[in-house]
Amino acid sequence: MSDCIFCKIAAGEIPSNTLYEDDKVKVIFDISPATLGHALVIPKEHAANVFEIQDDLLAHAHIVAKKIAAALKEATGCKGVNILQNNGEVAGQSVFHLHIHVIPRYDDDDAHIKWTPGTQDTEGLDKIAAKVKEIL
Amino acid sequence: MSDCIFCKIAAGEIPSNTLYEDDKVKVIFDISPATLGHALVIPKEHAANVFEIQDDLLAHAHIVAKKIAAALKEATGCKGVNILQNNGEVAGQSVFHLHIHVIPRYDDDDAHIKWTPGTQDTEGLDKIAAKVKEIL
Repeated sequence: MSDCIFCKIAAGEIPSNTLYEDDKVKVIFDISPATLGHALVIPKEHAANVFEIQDDLLAHAHIVAKKIAAALKEATGCKGVNILQNNGEVAGQSVFHLHIHVIPRYDDDDAHIKWTPGTQDTEGLDKIAAKVKEIL
Repeated sequence: MSDCIFCKIAAGEIPSNTLYEDDKVKVIFDISPATLGHALVIPKEHAANVFEIQDDLLAHAHIVAKKIAAALKEATGCKGVNILQNNGEVAGQSVFHLHIHVIPRYDDDDAHIKWTPGTQDTEGLDKIAAKVKEIL
């Protein structure tokens, strides 16, 4: 898309610090990182989110994310990695071109990727499960 | 693995509220959900984390996560979805059998999946990038 910053980065129209590139994806460092080494896997073909992307491109992007996670773990000495993909503004998505965050994690870092564990709303879940099974 | 709770759930040895199942993965509701409808995609073959899983199984699990995300969005009316996979205790992993969180997001929900955006440590990233490129 002509007005999409990640399309421009993927096409090389905007320069980026590229960690990895093939014919389907580009991997760059996040310009506003959660932690040192925070990288983004960006598919070259535009899809706004997980609901729009083709299955084979999503699969390839996640296999690349795995390789990047392993390489970043070795290169940074981090103790863990989050692999995160946000869909929708309410979920924290700020660029509406699908991307996968690969976030190295260190003791006492500043990334907050957690929640207060809730309890299951059994009745609510039964209704949702019934609908999901109809849809699938 | 005989002492792994997700292996037992995947094998049906421990009952679960199953949303979806095929020969490679089982999808259940998280017992301590971040939000209503929070689901987990669990590969049936044991792998502790993203560093251990086979590429084709990881790809399949993420294609299933996409389908579950779309079905949950329709079923719950949520406004967005996080797809999250944690590796290592420091990254929030608590069961050491790889699983993908599919988390429906609602206005004013209680999930905190965000970070304070930092600035790039250019010198540090140059060193990491050089190491990553050697490894890949």
